[in-house]
Amino acid sequence: LFVRVLGSAAGGGFPQWNCGCANCSGLRAGRIAATARTQESVAVSADGDSWFLLNASPEIRQQIEGFAGLHPKSQRHTPIAGVILTSGDLDHCLGLLSLRESQSLVVYATERVRRGFAEDNGFYRTLERFPGQVTWRRLLLSEPLPLSDAKGQKSGLTLTPFSVPGKAPLHDSDRSDDPEHSVGLRIESEPGAVLAYLSGVAGPSSAVDALVRGADAVFFDGTFWASDELIALGIGTRSAEDMAHWRIGGAGGSLEYLRGLSARRRVFIHINNTNPMLRDDSAERKQVQAAGVEVGYDGMEFQL
Amino acid sequence: LFVRVLGSAAGGGFPQWNCGCANCSGLRAGRIAATARTQESVAVSADGDSWFLLNASPEIRQQIEGFAGLHPKSQRHTPIAGVILTSGDLDHCLGLLSLRESQSLVVYATERVRRGFAEDNGFYRTLERFPGQVTWRRLLLSEPLPLSDAKGQKSGLTLTPFSVPGKAPLHDSDRSDDPEHSVGLRIESEPGAVLAYLSGVAGPSSAVDALVRGADAVFFDGTFWASDELIALGIGTRSAEDMAHWRIGGAGGSLEYLRGLSARRRVFIHINNTNPMLRDDSAERKQVQAAGVEVGYDGMEFQL
Repeated sequence: LFVRVLGSAAGGGFPQWNCGCANCSGLRAGRIAATARTQESVAVSADGDSWFLLNASPEIRQQIEGFAGLHPKSQRHTPIAGVILTSGDLDHCLGLLSLRESQSLVVYATERVRRGFAEDNGFYRTLERFPGQVTWRRLLLSEPLPLSDAKGQKSGLTLTPFSVPGKAPLHDSDRSDDPEHSVGLRIESEPGAVLAYLSGVAGPSSAVDALVRGADAVFFDGTFWASDELIALGIGTRSAEDMAHWRIGGAGGSLEYLRGLSARRRVFIHINNTNPMLRDDSAERKQVQAAGVEVGYDGMEFQL
Repeated sequence: LFVRVLGSAAGGGFPQWNCGCANCSGLRAGRIAATARTQESVAVSADGDSWFLLNASPEIRQQIEGFAGLHPKSQRHTPIAGVILTSGDLDHCLGLLSLRESQSLVVYATERVRRGFAEDNGFYRTLERFPGQVTWRRLLLSEPLPLSDAKGQKSGLTLTPFSVPGKAPLHDSDRSDDPEHSVGLRIESEPGAVLAYLSGVAGPSSAVDALVRGADAVFFDGTFWASDELIALGIGTRSAEDMAHWRIGGAGGSLEYLRGLSARRRVFIHINNTNPMLRDDSAERKQVQAAGVEVGYDGMEFQL
């Protein structure tokens, strides 16, 4: 199972366009030890030829060009066999609208996420220019599904989506609770490697436990270090929990949870620009490292 | 009048994600003399502090980070005083959805373009999170309008939009002709410098003549060199004209038209990845240069 991080930041990226916090302004001025990050997306492949994207970030064009594995091999071609959406958040799905130019696409999503994208946006017609341009494949909660490309060619990967604690996207007209709004992914390759992908997790749950159990690698929501991170900086009024993100630090934080897992690779992803662990020399980064956990970065690669 | 090109390519950029044409594959492999380009957008300013973006490309985050003039000057801030949309094409407006994070925005557009964006897309609710998040200012054809920021602070720039030959965006539900679908811009600074901005022009018209008359600088649709450019490469079935772009080359092409203008700077922009003038050493590039015309590139800057 080949894994390549295309983007590791939360919505807005790092730095964020309208943010002059110590991290963002420090990075721009070269005053801090940190690395820019684009918005969250990961590419996975069983064979290194045909890839599935976990989420489609607004920066997808730059992310594709930045990774040779995703470059076309003929005049009209893409090695992207499919895209899997974990939620309808803009930072997870806006990039689909950049995958046009008459290319067939396969998109895996829950019915709730499909409806929010395809039935609520006129822009979607750009992906309906010929019959079969997009093939939606429905994610049913807790049901394993073999991943295949537009022609039905098997990938050697099986995906099982689990509903994880989360909430509806901010732009959603329907703000009611729905277990289909936010999923975590368990991806297994035929030799038996297991990747757990949970880039948005509001807090602990039995589904989260089931997702990470026995996984070789875990990507986990790394949005905020502290509950009051934005409030303390004076740039927000809501806590991490209000925004459906499990804080990393302190007792009961996700770092404590990840420390207890047996996975060989435990990697924070979807990291907000304000998070102190983005600084390579921060106390928070040292805590993460001491727990055997990694801070994801664009271009990170590994094999399971 | 300060001018900075943020992106110079047509929709899809150069290289394009699913294109392996000689230009795109040559650029990726370093086999041709050419430079990558993001999708079309230009920043203009009367004072170098407060900027207006002409179009909001999908790559707007990367474009903002790439130009220090657009970086925030305090913890929550943007020097972007407003965005002007010349059409509802996705490569011209998708980037607006990346300008969220609770920042007030001013957007100038025709009523037709505003409706296509704001009334036909659920995603737009991300820009309606607080009252007054987006202030739309209506472009009325051929009527001069002073540009100002969200607080009404005058910019020292006056904009006059003209309807130019074009067509409805591909995703538009209403495919009927409407002079508001596609506009060219004439931007004047108080000392009297004039910039004409025509990044999409289907062919000659009296409005095009009026736009460029007496302008100090002209940006002009540089999408296709030849009418049959995509057809000859086997990657498309439609001519440049079918796609509402005035071809550059040959008798009656836009290069001939631009050669006859007195503007000090005449710059092609919105250049498709297949265009042979993208190669620094091509015969087509030499023709452009011989006519006193320039091929726009990301990062190009000048003052009028």
